[in-house]
Formats: sequence, structure tokens, C-alpha cells
Amino acid sequence: MRAARYHGRCDVRIEDVAEPDPGPDEVKLRVAFNGICGSDLHEYYSGPSACPTTPHPMTGAQIPVILGHELSGVVTAIGARVTDVHEGDQVAVEPLVTCGHCASCRSGRYHLCSRLAIHGLSTGGGGLAEYTVVNRSMVHRLPPNVTLAHGALVEPMSVALHAVRRAGAQAGQTAVVHGAGPIGIGALLALRAQNVDVIVVEPSPVRRDSAVALGAVHALDPSAVDVVTAIRQLTGGLGAAVAIEAAGAPASLQTALATTAIQGTVVVVAVHERPVELPPLSLLAGELTITGSVAYCNDFPAVIESMATGAYPVDPWVSTISLDDLVDFGFPALRDGDAVKILVDLGAP
Amino acid sequence: MRAARYHGRCDVRIEDVAEPDPGPDEVKLRVAFNGICGSDLHEYYSGPSACPTTPHPMTGAQIPVILGHELSGVVTAIGARVTDVHEGDQVAVEPLVTCGHCASCRSGRYHLCSRLAIHGLSTGGGGLAEYTVVNRSMVHRLPPNVTLAHGALVEPMSVALHAVRRAGAQAGQTAVVHGAGPIGIGALLALRAQNVDVIVVEPSPVRRDSAVALGAVHALDPSAVDVVTAIRQLTGGLGAAVAIEAAGAPASLQTALATTAIQGTVVVVAVHERPVELPPLSLLAGELTITGSVAYCNDFPAVIESMATGAYPVDPWVSTISLDDLVDFGFPALRDGDAVKILVDLGAP
Repeated sequence: MRAARYHGRCDVRIEDVAEPDPGPDEVKLRVAFNGICGSDLHEYYSGPSACPTTPHPMTGAQIPVILGHELSGVVTAIGARVTDVHEGDQVAVEPLVTCGHCASCRSGRYHLCSRLAIHGLSTGGGGLAEYTVVNRSMVHRLPPNVTLAHGALVEPMSVALHAVRRAGAQAGQTAVVHGAGPIGIGALLALRAQNVDVIVVEPSPVRRDSAVALGAVHALDPSAVDVVTAIRQLTGGLGAAVAIEAAGAPASLQTALATTAIQGTVVVVAVHERPVELPPLSLLAGELTITGSVAYCNDFPAVIESMATGAYPVDPWVSTISLDDLVDFGFPALRDGDAVKILVDLGAP
Repeated sequence: MRAARYHGRCDVRIEDVAEPDPGPDEVKLRVAFNGICGSDLHEYYSGPSACPTTPHPMTGAQIPVILGHELSGVVTAIGARVTDVHEGDQVAVEPLVTCGHCASCRSGRYHLCSRLAIHGLSTGGGGLAEYTVVNRSMVHRLPPNVTLAHGALVEPMSVALHAVRRAGAQAGQTAVVHGAGPIGIGALLALRAQNVDVIVVEPSPVRRDSAVALGAVHALDPSAVDVVTAIRQLTGGLGAAVAIEAAGAPASLQTALATTAIQGTVVVVAVHERPVELPPLSLLAGELTITGSVAYCNDFPAVIESMATGAYPVDPWVSTISLDDLVDFGFPALRDGDAVKILVDLGAP
């Protein structure tokens, strides 16, 4: 089968590899779509980071590994002990591979598993391939009115929903979403579904337009306006109840702290690679809260249910390419902000 | 009457000033005890900061002002419209003077009032005087088994309780309290009352001894041990559920982040004067929360009730001096960590 394998920085190759067979607790999928994630870009341009260069402690995988952890597909085979998933089922894959035994797993916080692996980064297999196998516990069936393209969006939309849930905004409040990449867009959609007004801060005009089309009341360009002053004005001088930091720039976090209302919450879902200088007095003055948000934990079902009600339109922010265009077109387009979300069509019939 | 008035940095004078008269909604107190607070030290050694050098927007006060915002006293006169406080009542004073009309006040978060003044810093009057007058809404009656010395501790213990409430620790969990000054000691006592195990981090041997005497399971000296390693070991490698940062040192906040368990909470109650560099990845990795805690809001009644049950012993951490010893003994002893909490006895009969 054809697969995109990561060999190292700026070295992803479309190769022919053997089709995997499902173990007794696994299901085999014909992959339909796989989204390109910011962490894929990070591996490609700055890695290896999440892709192991020595055998992963849980999975034993090491590079080269197949990329792709935002995937949907059709079940083509099931292992001997799988009884509740069937050939032909259309599914989304929750790619976290967890140990099940550490303190995090035992307390139901499997996304913080101390030995976590991610299918498509550190298991060897992944969604940028014609076929893949995953544990039965990792697949979520899609209802008939949720397309396979939507299925590949469940993973990033769950990242966003998890962040929004951690923020705890209430209907009628205002939230600021910093960054209108896929996670920012997902946060916007999740907040709109809760009747929270959303201001988006995003330098890319393509992404600002998407945000407005999807319900943002304002989309501010931080390279053109004084965002702190603008948000203060738009919120009656009080600041926003909630900020979702999905941009990953130090200035975004500082802006978020400066524009959040008393006792408000700033959720950091973007990965910040460098330390950020925070003025703790700003925390103190308003009893602000900063909290991190990692992946998702029991968030897939709610996203799939919302998709079934139409809460996740794919226009105008999702586009589709073929596997052959991954390296030469997909990665640079996302790096340069020329697209919001790109799905790779793996050609399931 | 005699009063300690702040004229500027390193300039506090014991002076004779006129006794204040209560307005129609005010009560007049013969002050019993007034505690010296870290913010008094800050004004004295580094101010003026909270003491206004131009007329305060709400109170009109400016230096020289009488210091002292941790006070207890006996009611000696009441204003014409005061009906539910009586001469002879023993009371603690909640020194926040709020506007009542801003968004914070209207949402019940009066401690975050946008025009806040503090009696004993920015009203002109204060507790380091033989008499003072405050609005009736600022006094809390002490039950018969709560002494006037305890009454002067209600304010700092409420700061600590507010921080502990914001942390949300549960019985059986472990908390780390950074700094065993009065707020750290108050946090320790509030956490012990909730059956939370407490590790204290504090360089002063006097304060460490107090912490152990008051129920800390461990008191670590950050100048002698690797605190991060020690706390990891004491918590089975997981870190503590909660940290209360009551030290105000950048290293304390960084240590707190490094030793808090997944999804744990770091409450910053100390005032950090300088920006602190935070690694956001540490937030992300464990979904930690950092939040600020400011003063208190509806916390006085719970502290007074706990005091009535004996939850706030004053040995060995509280000592008493006379007003004449305030400047030459009280301020330097606290600055140098030679004492934990000093009350000034104002001589109520």
C-alpha cells in the first residue's frame, strides 16, 4: 500500500509498504481522509520531536514512521475478539494509545498518560496510508449523516472542544480566540454552539475571512490594529470572559492576559516552544486563571453528535488534496497560512 | 489620640491626631490590636505604592495617612443610621472600601472593585491608632470565645482562606505552601482544617518551626535541599494537587509549576513585583492551572467561625508589641524573617 513515511526533518516520502493485519483486539481500516495537523508541520520542518528516534517505550516504534493522526475510514477487517465493530462501519479514529495503568489512566485522564503514544506519530502506523490498524477502543462510529470528510475533522475539533470546555464560558459572554487555524476555528464553532460571542485575532486574511464566515462577530488583524485597545472597546472596557490561545505566539498569550475580564480564564491550547514572560501582577489584579489544554478526553462523542446536527460546516475552511501533493503543496500552504485545514484524500471507494 | 502615620518611604511617625467622629452609617472603634502586614512593610521600605500621593479617586485621602488594615476593636459610638451594631461589641474590620457600582461590585466581587480603597492604606484612617471609624458594613462581630487578638488576625487569615478556596484542594490530597509568612501559615491552617496534607517550603528556620508546630507534614528549606526532587519524592513522583504561592519569589512560582500534579492548581497569592518567566509547555503538558487570589470576598465569616472552634492557634507564630516599637522593632523583625506575625497592641481596656 502507499503511505507517507517520516524519515526525518524535511524528509517525508510516499512509499510502498506492506498492508498491516489486525491483531485480535484491533480493526483494520481503509483510510478515507487524513487531515494535516500543526504537529505534522512541526515534525516536518523542525522535528523529529514527537516521532521517536529510539524505540518508543510503549510501542517500540521509531522513525521511519507513517504520519497521520486525524483520520477517518471504513472498517475492512476485525480482530478475533472484536464483536461490536463491523466490516463496512464508517469511523473516526481517536489516535491516543495509552498504557491504561499509570495514575493518569487510572483516574480517567487517559490523555495525560505518562507513556502516551499517538497513532500517526509514535506507533509506526498512521492515517496517511491506504490502510491502517488501530485498537477497537480507538474507533468511534460515524452516524449516517456525518461524512467521512467530517470524520477526519473529529480529532482537531475535539482538541478545540476540550479547550472550550476547560474555559467554561457561558451563553451571552464574549470569548476571544487567538489564532484562526483549525483549532481556533474549532473553538469558534464550539463557542458559537454555546451562544458565546467570539472575537477572533488572526493575521492571515484568508483565516480571518473564514472566521467571519463561520460566525465570529469580529476578526481583528494584530498587524494592523492595537488588539488590546480594540478588545477593551468591544467589551465595554471589561475585557472578555474567556480567551482561547490557539496561536502559539508569546504576544498572543500576553494579549490574552491583558484583555481578559476579572476572574476570567485563558486556556492555552497552542504549543509554546519558548518560555513566555508573564507579569504575575496581571494575574493577581483580576484573579485571572491560565490553564493548559491537552488533546481531548472523552470529547469525540460530543463532536460527532454536533456534526450530525450541522454544527461543523466545512466551507470555506477545509480543502482536500491527494497524497501526492502532501509534501510539495500541503505542508507549505499550511506553513504560510494560505489554507486553514487540508485533508488528504486517501481514496477509500 | 496617638496614631502611626505614613509620610513616605522609611518615614512613619507616631503622632497625636484628632479623634475621628462616626458619620451616620459609620461606627467608631477603640482599636484593640492591629497586625503588621507585608504591604505595610512594602509601603515603608519601597513605597509609596498603595498609599496615595495624590487624592484617592474614591476617598480623597493622600499621604500622610494612618496605617493599619488588620484590626480588631470595641465599638464606642455608632452613627445615626446604624441599628444592628452596638457600643461594647467586639469586632474585626474588613478594610475594603468599595464603590458598590462598578461591574465587579455589581457581580458580587467587591474585592475586585475598580475604585477600591483600603482602610489603613488609602482612606486616611487606619488601625494603627487608638480610635478609628469605618462603615458599618465593614465590621464583623466577634463571638464571645474569639479574642480581640484573634480578631486582628481575621483579615490575613481571610486572605489565606480565599486563596485556599480558589485552589479547591480535597481531603487526603497534598498541597505545597510556598512561604510560611502569615499568609502561608493561614493557608496551612485552612488546608489542615480540610484534612489536606501540607508541605511547606520556607527558608527561615523560625517560620519552618512554626509551620511544623502548626501541622505541616514537612517543612523544606529551599536553600538546603533540592525542593523539586524532594516534593516529587514525597508525592510518589506525581507532584502535589495544589500549590499556594505565598512567597513572592520567582523561583517559588517556577518550583510550584514543576511540582504540581496533572490538572493541579497553583494559586498565586503573593505579590510578584517583577515579571516571571514561565514555560508554557509545563502548563500544557499537565493541564495545570495558575490563578491569582486577591484579598477576600465573603470570607471573614468562615474564618471567625473557625476561630470559634479553635482552628487558629496563635502559638507559636503571633507576637505582640506596643505602638512605640512599631518602626524600630516591628518592621525590621518582619523584613528579616525573625517573626511571623506581629500584632500592635493599641491598648483597648
